[in-house]
Amino acid sequence: MTSVPISFWRDAVPRITGFRVYDLRFPTSLTADGSDAMNQDADYSAAYIILETDDPQLYGCGFTFTIGRGNDICAAAMELRARPLVGIEVGSLRNELGSVYRRLKKDSQLRWLGPDKGVEHLALGAVMNALWDLAARRERLPLWRLLAEMTPEELVDAADLSYLSDALTSEEALAILRGLEPGREERIALLEASGYPCYTTSAGWLGYSDEKLRRLCQEAVDQGYRHIKLKVGASLEDDLRRLAIAREVIGPDADLMIDANQVWDVPEAIEWVRKLAEFDPLWIEEPTSPDDVLGHAAIREAVRPVGVATGEHGMNRVLFKQLFQAGAIDYCQLDACRLASVNEVLAVQLMAAKFGVPVCPHAGGVGLCELVQHLSIFDFVAVSGDLTGRVTEFVDHLHEHFVDPCTVRDGAYVLPASPGYSAEIREETLAEYSFPSGGYWASTHLGRRELSRRAQQSGHDEVAFARSAEEELV
Amino acid sequence: MTSVPISFWRDAVPRITGFRVYDLRFPTSLTADGSDAMNQDADYSAAYIILETDDPQLYGCGFTFTIGRGNDICAAAMELRARPLVGIEVGSLRNELGSVYRRLKKDSQLRWLGPDKGVEHLALGAVMNALWDLAARRERLPLWRLLAEMTPEELVDAADLSYLSDALTSEEALAILRGLEPGREERIALLEASGYPCYTTSAGWLGYSDEKLRRLCQEAVDQGYRHIKLKVGASLEDDLRRLAIAREVIGPDADLMIDANQVWDVPEAIEWVRKLAEFDPLWIEEPTSPDDVLGHAAIREAVRPVGVATGEHGMNRVLFKQLFQAGAIDYCQLDACRLASVNEVLAVQLMAAKFGVPVCPHAGGVGLCELVQHLSIFDFVAVSGDLTGRVTEFVDHLHEHFVDPCTVRDGAYVLPASPGYSAEIREETLAEYSFPSGGYWASTHLGRRELSRRAQQSGHDEVAFARSAEEELV
Repeated sequence: MTSVPISFWRDAVPRITGFRVYDLRFPTSLTADGSDAMNQDADYSAAYIILETDDPQLYGCGFTFTIGRGNDICAAAMELRARPLVGIEVGSLRNELGSVYRRLKKDSQLRWLGPDKGVEHLALGAVMNALWDLAARRERLPLWRLLAEMTPEELVDAADLSYLSDALTSEEALAILRGLEPGREERIALLEASGYPCYTTSAGWLGYSDEKLRRLCQEAVDQGYRHIKLKVGASLEDDLRRLAIAREVIGPDADLMIDANQVWDVPEAIEWVRKLAEFDPLWIEEPTSPDDVLGHAAIREAVRPVGVATGEHGMNRVLFKQLFQAGAIDYCQLDACRLASVNEVLAVQLMAAKFGVPVCPHAGGVGLCELVQHLSIFDFVAVSGDLTGRVTEFVDHLHEHFVDPCTVRDGAYVLPASPGYSAEIREETLAEYSFPSGGYWASTHLGRRELSRRAQQSGHDEVAFARSAEEELV
Repeated sequence: MTSVPISFWRDAVPRITGFRVYDLRFPTSLTADGSDAMNQDADYSAAYIILETDDPQLYGCGFTFTIGRGNDICAAAMELRARPLVGIEVGSLRNELGSVYRRLKKDSQLRWLGPDKGVEHLALGAVMNALWDLAARRERLPLWRLLAEMTPEELVDAADLSYLSDALTSEEALAILRGLEPGREERIALLEASGYPCYTTSAGWLGYSDEKLRRLCQEAVDQGYRHIKLKVGASLEDDLRRLAIAREVIGPDADLMIDANQVWDVPEAIEWVRKLAEFDPLWIEEPTSPDDVLGHAAIREAVRPVGVATGEHGMNRVLFKQLFQAGAIDYCQLDACRLASVNEVLAVQLMAAKFGVPVCPHAGGVGLCELVQHLSIFDFVAVSGDLTGRVTEFVDHLHEHFVDPCTVRDGAYVLPASPGYSAEIREETLAEYSFPSGGYWASTHLGRRELSRRAQQSGHDEVAFARSAEEELV
């Protein structure tokens, strides 16, 4: 009888052996959390993937964030995107994050469905998020530190710079990163002392009453926030009243941001924002279609000194390139799941640094805060070297579902210390909120009532799911 | 015993009672049909839907075109998109094509996955294509004639003008259509005599040998085509040789177009096209990322007198708005499936008319020729009133699968006469090419070999499908 020496197993390079994909949905529409002028009934959701290796202690977690229906479509697309990962070695993954990304992206049949946008791009992002998480876990580093330890050459190889050379060449990208290599550790030390500054949107959802708005603004001030964001765009009268309340509570010196979630055409945006200018907003966020580079440029020109911010629906690096080239935005609100993971985020961060636009990532939803803290920390440490005008979104919802939730103290993200991208969702949550078969949806009184209500709304997309769930219960 | 009078049934307004969705794939990668610098192994595919009513003679067919993997994702998204249609009356559908479209589009949870782009937008387009087909069948008119009979007010109500008012207001759209109301019948008569001019891409796929290229160019000239299109962008040396052959065969007066299928960055596109300029191409198509408005504008400026064309991946009306505003293109190649059906096509046609850009729709693939002939005819009859610089793509592949295939004679589309949008696929084709269970894929020697080959390519997405199909066979 032969036996394999233990050292063989210890030294063996693990391989990705498979993956599990989950459609997770949280019934946030019941409480109007997340309500804005465009999205009145968001059920915050995550299409979630776990990449497994032959080492049970080593895995990678990633997701894309959606707001309900169609989360299953993303999950199905993620399965297609993840299949080529099965079998690859998780050795020096740090050096292969660019080549694996390019390999997944090269699938020309899937490319046709974008390219680089919509469901297929969200799916690629989710799968690559899991691979970055795996790479960081493999090195027992939080993702921001893995990035901060990568050389300029390794980072440029990982970054997706395709279609960007008229705005940023590889050489320029290298020069930016090399210029900030000295001082990385000092900047890390600075953030370890003070955290990365954030602002809160938790106060300002459109569905909240005036009283709740006033109370939440006061609480935010008491918690140390110097920036508050309110949703606008459904009713001018309501906006004027709500902004007056918020400005009264936070005082003249704190920053007030407003967010229209794409409800306006360009001329309407200009007219409306000018009427809200008396409350001195720092920025108007998503004033119109996220695809409208020239529209944002026109709005920015017309509403100065109010700044223009967009990016949570910024579909890819080519869009951001044009926003920078056209001078269309004052703040770049890239999204950790909308873009195709760190590979594409790196490209946008590098362009933003070249064009001098502060990156203030979009967060909230499910787990976006957990992800963007890593991106913002790395941005300061190695790409921009600057905190001026930078503030990252924070929304205090649904963090309890994460194994390593983000921590905010005195209006700043505390640097995450656990290995990975903070993307792992708790096992209990997977069991409870898998849709439609998880415990919450299938078993609790509230979940059953919700499923039933949705089933009765003719044409609602959960109908089929709901019916089958109901049938199981009866 | 009571009986319902027959006249009741005859007068009853039919309702949509359900739908069937198919994942259809054709193994075109085996013959290099459709090969270009970006897409070397396209399996032309259609995610296809039939909307059924309680009148078995009345149904609507629509599809989106893809090139293989991910066609199942589109099909799944179409099921979600189509559910709210079940139950609606198919009475005066002509007046409701705008409101139904807005109702489907309003789903804010699905909107998050775009908005207006990628899989969800393709799915919306496919479902609305089927509804337009149904509307035209209901009135026993070919779609182009239904459109030509609609009033300017009806057309503007159907058009998706959202986010466009800085470039085209409803009033301007109405004025364009009213201006061309006189003369619609004369223009129809003109097209009935001569057809709508088209060009062929069948000659110029990248995977064809020089001999095949020469032979196909000669055949095209013999068939009356005055325009020939070649794929370029994989190798400059090959491009120079192939363009010389084509120009030699077609002579100096016919038009030669070239198509790079997005392979270049902006500076590379400029350099490469300048080197091909000696063959006097009418246009360079898709020189770079389809999302890059400013890039196309820069290329156009740099490669004059070669024109710039793009649009088959033009994701939505907001992108086309900016292409027009920035003066980025000489030819607008909108796609009948990439845009969200006739509703969004109308908006782009109206903007093109205002900005004076000829619309030369993209076609080929599966069934795109069948669709775009209707759009081009309507464009001339009621929107542009002009044939100058207009030529619609034609590719002679896969028409045999359609119940009412397009007819091309002397380099022009013959006006379709049957009711509907020419989108209906033959029952035999549904049985044969449904993936992976249809007759071709599951039973024929070639299909089985293909499935098996794909199963062996590790990481290929058909693996799971193929395995289950193989298991059934064993």
